[in-house]
Amino acid sequence: MKCIGVILSGCGVFDGSEIYETVLTLLAIERAGAKAICFAPDKPQLHVINHITGEEMPESRNVLVESARIVRGKVLPINQADSVQLDALILPGGFGVAKNLSRFADAGADCVIDTDLQKLTQEIYKQSKPIGFICIAPAILPLLIDAPIRITIGTDSMYAEVIEAMGGIHVPCPVDDIVVDEEHKIVTTPATMLAGSIDDAASGIDKLVKRVVEMIA
Amino acid sequence: MKCIGVILSGCGVFDGSEIYETVLTLLAIERAGAKAICFAPDKPQLHVINHITGEEMPESRNVLVESARIVRGKVLPINQADSVQLDALILPGGFGVAKNLSRFADAGADCVIDTDLQKLTQEIYKQSKPIGFICIAPAILPLLIDAPIRITIGTDSMYAEVIEAMGGIHVPCPVDDIVVDEEHKIVTTPATMLAGSIDDAASGIDKLVKRVVEMIA
Repeated sequence: MKCIGVILSGCGVFDGSEIYETVLTLLAIERAGAKAICFAPDKPQLHVINHITGEEMPESRNVLVESARIVRGKVLPINQADSVQLDALILPGGFGVAKNLSRFADAGADCVIDTDLQKLTQEIYKQSKPIGFICIAPAILPLLIDAPIRITIGTDSMYAEVIEAMGGIHVPCPVDDIVVDEEHKIVTTPATMLAGSIDDAASGIDKLVKRVVEMIA
Repeated sequence: MKCIGVILSGCGVFDGSEIYETVLTLLAIERAGAKAICFAPDKPQLHVINHITGEEMPESRNVLVESARIVRGKVLPINQADSVQLDALILPGGFGVAKNLSRFADAGADCVIDTDLQKLTQEIYKQSKPIGFICIAPAILPLLIDAPIRITIGTDSMYAEVIEAMGGIHVPCPVDDIVVDEEHKIVTTPATMLAGSIDDAASGIDKLVKRVVEMIA
């Protein structure tokens, strides 16, 4: 059975993984006849956001422990991921990507990236295995992979400019579609960067997962 | 557009709402052409569980604030729910139902129920509007509705006995099906009480939501 590493970044759109996207990704992987193994960094979140008020809460939470809420406990520390045992890599969105897996949210193009995510992504890429990034996650791809890759984060021109400045090629894309860089085996979709509903996000995520699974050699 | 109240009980299967079930319910409601409005009690959780170890954490979290993580902030206090404006009620599972919406987890048949949930459910029932309960949630239905209702929590004989002791009629049911009490307009499905996968849970939840929407007068 094809085995896809799914990287989580917490639990909740404003300080972790976007939950709709994560569940839709896992469901699409099952329906494509593949198996997901979830990973997350075992470290503190950048901060904790009250998802009603949008304000920071005076708490500290661990990215791995909170990610486990989405997947009923079935998540491993990302430094235990073995790229040789994975056939592909998928990263759902949420601000956790820009706050916990990188510091893109505050440092933009100059941000640092989680070293374990960087190592894993580069190994998967060097092994010519497909990579799927969803929502805001594609924004950090130019910092992970040193190649002029074609990616989308939807239609946001500000983010598109930042991506181009980092060496990526931004391709505008509607919510129900994907951008495929065949040469580098990279698939991206805007999902909740554009989605007005869960079903909207599902349409693009389903396509992304199918394409990633098809690309597995 | 038909409007369905969805009751949340936190964020994460072991101390809140089961996240797969909640997202699948919201997706199915969209796909059925209806609209979900989410509610949760504004009160502390019974406790906070580390979803990797299963152990209690020395923290306090609020049910409404944590529920907001699943739905990108779009949740209202349950005491603001107006039964007249809702066409149906659906309650996904997770231990939050048995810990935060009731104390079924430790007190069983003698447990207290959240008074706002009790009031809302009884009003919806008295207005002859359909009610869908998922996973472990049906176990508290006999305490909410004073009638011999036919419900399922799957095939667990221990829970079935407790349900019968409380005055309910337990009907065994596979994961991909529903039990419909036509007279009382109550639909139940086992979901992750039995599901081995997200797709398994989706099959029963999709049926439940479709049936609930069909039952709306």
